[in-house]
Amino acid sequence: MQRVLVKISYNGAQFLGFQIQNQGRTVQGYFEKILKRMHQQHVRIHPSSRTDRGVHAKEQYFHFDTHLNITPERWQHAMNSALPDDIYVHEVTFIDQDFHCRYDCVGKRYRYSMYQAEHRNPFWSQLKTFEPKTLNIEAMQRAAQYFIGTHDFTTFCSQKTEVESKERTIYESRIEPTADGIDFVITGSGFLYNMVRVIMAYLLEVGKGKRSADDVPNLLTQQDRNLVPHTAPAEGLYLEKIYLAPEQLRVDFGDDIQIHYKKSTQI
Amino acid sequence: MQRVLVKISYNGAQFLGFQIQNQGRTVQGYFEKILKRMHQQHVRIHPSSRTDRGVHAKEQYFHFDTHLNITPERWQHAMNSALPDDIYVHEVTFIDQDFHCRYDCVGKRYRYSMYQAEHRNPFWSQLKTFEPKTLNIEAMQRAAQYFIGTHDFTTFCSQKTEVESKERTIYESRIEPTADGIDFVITGSGFLYNMVRVIMAYLLEVGKGKRSADDVPNLLTQQDRNLVPHTAPAEGLYLEKIYLAPEQLRVDFGDDIQIHYKKSTQI
Repeated sequence: MQRVLVKISYNGAQFLGFQIQNQGRTVQGYFEKILKRMHQQHVRIHPSSRTDRGVHAKEQYFHFDTHLNITPERWQHAMNSALPDDIYVHEVTFIDQDFHCRYDCVGKRYRYSMYQAEHRNPFWSQLKTFEPKTLNIEAMQRAAQYFIGTHDFTTFCSQKTEVESKERTIYESRIEPTADGIDFVITGSGFLYNMVRVIMAYLLEVGKGKRSADDVPNLLTQQDRNLVPHTAPAEGLYLEKIYLAPEQLRVDFGDDIQIHYKKSTQI
Repeated sequence: MQRVLVKISYNGAQFLGFQIQNQGRTVQGYFEKILKRMHQQHVRIHPSSRTDRGVHAKEQYFHFDTHLNITPERWQHAMNSALPDDIYVHEVTFIDQDFHCRYDCVGKRYRYSMYQAEHRNPFWSQLKTFEPKTLNIEAMQRAAQYFIGTHDFTTFCSQKTEVESKERTIYESRIEPTADGIDFVITGSGFLYNMVRVIMAYLLEVGKGKRSADDVPNLLTQQDRNLVPHTAPAEGLYLEKIYLAPEQLRVDFGDDIQIHYKKSTQI
């Protein structure tokens, strides 16, 4: 058997999410359908991350095992030829059997994109979130930086989150001004359910002067989701980078950072 | 009764087209549903153009008649509040009863957007057409210019077109290089069914060296669609501007241009 690593991106607008469902468009559904046709049997794919309905991925990985004798280039071509135009396979490589996309993932970067304008732009529908109100970017930047480090994120994730530990390490967390608005960029060891969208909703309230930037440390300590009840919409959210090795994280964030190795915890 | 003129734009990706159908998302369907709720009876809207499935509109107009006493600003707000985020109302104005969006439309501009890259970009899915092959832009530009003027466009429209006359006047027709590829821009007195997409398909073949740029005059004369059998996909096509008065056309293209006035011909 050969383990195959696949690097993809997709526009999440028209997907129910990554994970396969009984019916409806899913990213996993498309790939497993293609692989089933090629193998004449079900082949399961294992992603680094399961993105929710409407969430995009600029970079995402999955792996699968195959007995077929096909080169990486031919795999890429075979999949791209059969995929709809909102998914694309960027690269296919062969990897060792002991590598696992989910358990070897030591970090992820998300980007949340927002445009600011007087009028809604229908061509950014489902690609960027519309925010007509003026925002205090400086306050948002200050609030964003409080998330850096190792914290319990109970206050900033869905109450539906079922994991042993809600402790995660955030390596970067910042607001980036763009040509049309702002992006929020956050890289961490892992993210709890809805975590980026809850943090984003809070940062937006800070930007509008409804909440205080300097309240973040206190909110983290309280470990109570009721304190931050909102969740920003999925449409502006992009999975931007997957770290599949600790060395990649160290190159970007320094040798002293804390690495979280996974066994079978929440991805 | 007050006649109301509405200027809108929409992302055509998730619409079956402008025109209402028995089921499925249509632009007309959304507006007539909103107007029915407000009037407690069916109110018909009349667009300047009926765009096909997947075709976008940066600028489109329609009108309707109402007995309600609502200001233009409140109309705009009422409609935008009830619309999905892939349609937007830019402006509402009151107009005379003898004005008609369809019959007073004397010209339209379309833009066809294409990106050129080694790899397909899933975030341009349904917004720009992907063309990985190198194109001879100079040849395409030369071919495009042959369409300017008054011609019978039988060769360059769907055989399903049912109109008395297939003569149309083209005021501009050119290739515009963009940051990511090329756009084809064409303004005319009116367009036959699939006309822009058939011309685009031909220009692409010229760009790839499969057809000759200088063959256009001959093809126009032959009046035979079989000579140009392809149709470019809808996804790159934008209705960009609607000319609702001859003066607007003269400002853009000179006092000497031929204006086509409509009665009840093809829009």
